[in-house]
Amino acid sequence: MAKDKGPRRPRAEAPRGFRDDFGAEVAERKAMLDTIAGVYHRYGFDPLETPAIETLDALGKHLPDVDRPHDGVFAWTEEDGGPWIALRYDLTAPLARVAAQYRNDLPSPYRRYAMGPVWRNEKPGPGRFRQFTQCDADTVGAPSVAADAEICAMLSDVLEAVGIPRGDYIVRVNNRKVLNGVMEAAGLLDPADPDTHAEARGIVLRAIDKLDRLGVSGVRALLGEGRKDESGDVTAGAGLSDAQADVVMGFLDARGATAAETCARLRALVGASALGCDGVAELETIAALLEAQSYGPDRIVLDPSVVRGLGYYTGPVFEAELTFEILDEKGRPKQFGSVAGGGRYDDLVKRFTGQTVPATGVSVGVDRLLAALRAKGRLAGAIPGPVVVTVMDRTRMADYFAMAATLREAGIRAEVYLGNPRNFGNQLKYADRRAAPAAIIQGEDEAARGVVQIKDLALGARIAQDASLEEWKAQPAQSEVPLADLVDAVRRILAR
Amino acid sequence: MAKDKGPRRPRAEAPRGFRDDFGAEVAERKAMLDTIAGVYHRYGFDPLETPAIETLDALGKHLPDVDRPHDGVFAWTEEDGGPWIALRYDLTAPLARVAAQYRNDLPSPYRRYAMGPVWRNEKPGPGRFRQFTQCDADTVGAPSVAADAEICAMLSDVLEAVGIPRGDYIVRVNNRKVLNGVMEAAGLLDPADPDTHAEARGIVLRAIDKLDRLGVSGVRALLGEGRKDESGDVTAGAGLSDAQADVVMGFLDARGATAAETCARLRALVGASALGCDGVAELETIAALLEAQSYGPDRIVLDPSVVRGLGYYTGPVFEAELTFEILDEKGRPKQFGSVAGGGRYDDLVKRFTGQTVPATGVSVGVDRLLAALRAKGRLAGAIPGPVVVTVMDRTRMADYFAMAATLREAGIRAEVYLGNPRNFGNQLKYADRRAAPAAIIQGEDEAARGVVQIKDLALGARIAQDASLEEWKAQPAQSEVPLADLVDAVRRILAR
Repeated sequence: MAKDKGPRRPRAEAPRGFRDDFGAEVAERKAMLDTIAGVYHRYGFDPLETPAIETLDALGKHLPDVDRPHDGVFAWTEEDGGPWIALRYDLTAPLARVAAQYRNDLPSPYRRYAMGPVWRNEKPGPGRFRQFTQCDADTVGAPSVAADAEICAMLSDVLEAVGIPRGDYIVRVNNRKVLNGVMEAAGLLDPADPDTHAEARGIVLRAIDKLDRLGVSGVRALLGEGRKDESGDVTAGAGLSDAQADVVMGFLDARGATAAETCARLRALVGASALGCDGVAELETIAALLEAQSYGPDRIVLDPSVVRGLGYYTGPVFEAELTFEILDEKGRPKQFGSVAGGGRYDDLVKRFTGQTVPATGVSVGVDRLLAALRAKGRLAGAIPGPVVVTVMDRTRMADYFAMAATLREAGIRAEVYLGNPRNFGNQLKYADRRAAPAAIIQGEDEAARGVVQIKDLALGARIAQDASLEEWKAQPAQSEVPLADLVDAVRRILAR
Repeated sequence: MAKDKGPRRPRAEAPRGFRDDFGAEVAERKAMLDTIAGVYHRYGFDPLETPAIETLDALGKHLPDVDRPHDGVFAWTEEDGGPWIALRYDLTAPLARVAAQYRNDLPSPYRRYAMGPVWRNEKPGPGRFRQFTQCDADTVGAPSVAADAEICAMLSDVLEAVGIPRGDYIVRVNNRKVLNGVMEAAGLLDPADPDTHAEARGIVLRAIDKLDRLGVSGVRALLGEGRKDESGDVTAGAGLSDAQADVVMGFLDARGATAAETCARLRALVGASALGCDGVAELETIAALLEAQSYGPDRIVLDPSVVRGLGYYTGPVFEAELTFEILDEKGRPKQFGSVAGGGRYDDLVKRFTGQTVPATGVSVGVDRLLAALRAKGRLAGAIPGPVVVTVMDRTRMADYFAMAATLREAGIRAEVYLGNPRNFGNQLKYADRRAAPAAIIQGEDEAARGVVQIKDLALGARIAQDASLEEWKAQPAQSEVPLADLVDAVRRILAR
């Protein structure tokens, strides 16, 4: 029989799909955000912080998987008939709202960066969380693709600044206008009647976005009749004819050895489509600007297979991918994949104002970048522990606090042991637990003589591993110094 | 007649009670958080980041105004019968959950700091927002009030570190045990039967917490029959007899000239109450520890009128107040008031585990601190603008980008103008708008000669104000330098 006496206790758990970050995890993320913000700042971008909550109306429905039952957003209403509000699912939708709201006050163009959590009401899975950190930079009000080129160059700088060496990443650039030109050439888009075939084009877009995961044959199936996955589930296809599908697949395969070659192939594919030709010209401009600044194909390439799932992109799109392999949960090597992406979205502000405002930007997935650096062993994984002042005599807490204060005034991280001081072994175990570089000890005898014992814990750990009995007895890891020399003695240990 | 043609547009507004922070506001908050985190770190506190969302069950109901219709929390459920989840309303409740969930893995005592937004579903008002930033430090697992004394000392250090000079703030310390001892002495608390009079004690607690706002007579009214405010609304009173109310009011007035005097008065008030005597002894210990570290009454004082509204405090409570005056919305001088507070809450972790875990901590209201510094003119109010490279010839964007890149590589914030370049005046207006220290100009002629024009915009602004026509014509604010000297020339301007 189940007991149910006493008050019911809440479960001590974060909700499913949410996680807690401790110590080094927090410090590493902060360091990365600071580094990225530094790059954005040098490029002239200004910080913006919008609230976590927006009206659902203002956020709009821009998440890619339109066929999902829930729409991916945490949303609720406070009262019957009151407005629905929601947690932001990205940093772009709030920017569009801000650009509309403050359009008469902001500089134009407005370069802004933003960083912080976003929330997705999605099914959590391994490594998939419902809150994660984005770090975005966007330029609002710049019609020229020079703004897109700048974002791509800055993204490359960002990746190198946070510790991804050149060669370990690639920024891939494409253009939605070219894709639409290809759709036009395939008879899937009539510029005079853009609503016709809109649904099929949506399926094409999402199919191409899954190229990495489904491969060429999977995408091809989605362009035609549809696709049955391993579990037997069927995803509806776009219903393209073979000839139409050939044109789209040709687009995916159009990447040449050089930007010029890629553009030539694309120009052939889009044929007479004015939109398509415009898109190819934009790609040529971007490639030329980047080459002139030495962002060569070792950093940034044109790649028609990148489309980005989001429906709101209207021009250039880009994606940064880490090219090294890591081990997956089952120990198999796999490509790390995408860590950042973005593109031009000239119609998002128009939702509010009715007027087109050109905008382009990038979103860096900071948590994924951190996971990549962690997987490669490129993060420290710890923050330096404090010097621990132990408590030998609990009536003399004020003296121990004074020692800690003296160390801190010298810029040294220090704390007094605040657990039950009776068991001294527990105090040293605690100091180990905290990765303390040193422990300070002052009992009655030392206090009378005006000295302290300093235990070099790092050295002590090394000796404990390797030392002979004689060495152990010699205890070089513990030394006695006058109280007045405390700071100097600790500094010597920290400098080792 | 109202027009309702065309698609309905969403309103470009943040929800009521939420605000957007731009540029300097974001930078100033970040700088303050970094400074506070630095102090916490030196004291041995480790960072923790919990998600914005917790189960409502785990958060519990700890907000002070229990009589409010909504309970002050943004909460919702995703499905019928599913768990209710909520946005955290402070950083303490999530810490209690973490301390319970990871109790076998965390060091003990566990010193942690946390910073970030919290949300309150309250009626917004002037200066009252529904999302604001807290920056907390707590020690979990330290039973001794030495931990409370440490938090008070650290809070004092924090305030001075962020730019509140000594004398402009005061940390006031009290002890809930003493208040409960006073209640016992007044016949409002029977330690053997704590549920009796619990409601009246709650009213007393909230009444005392309103001393600043209602004054002595208002509090006195709430202790007795109740109080009618200016609008005619009646707040129910605790129903104390005059004799009982005298004891409570005596407690509020017990502050003496020294800590010893205050403690002596309190000891008289609590009489035979064991809890009360224990509380007075704790205050004596805290006062002794702080005095030994020279945190005298110019920084930290014992003050029985501080109780803190939250029901979960079990021992020492503290509050930091700014003592200078600012002007209110109507231009009248007023005390700035509380910017931080905290105390000991030994029962919060017990909610989850059934076992008492001692805990104490402080929460710093960063947005209020920033408002105070802003009101005193102690914040810069701007971030340094970028050097703006203007566009004279739009076919030469690559050259302009190269100039900006050169400046950035030298550590100088720089950007290319990305608006429509046709109207050069607009480019200079933009540079002014951005508070650019300099604008770089290179037309056809300059390009042919391998030089650039550099416009010193700060100097230019000064000249425009003061100069005679001759000085204006001499244009000392604009100079021509070889392209190779660009960085040095800009550095000279920045150094002015």
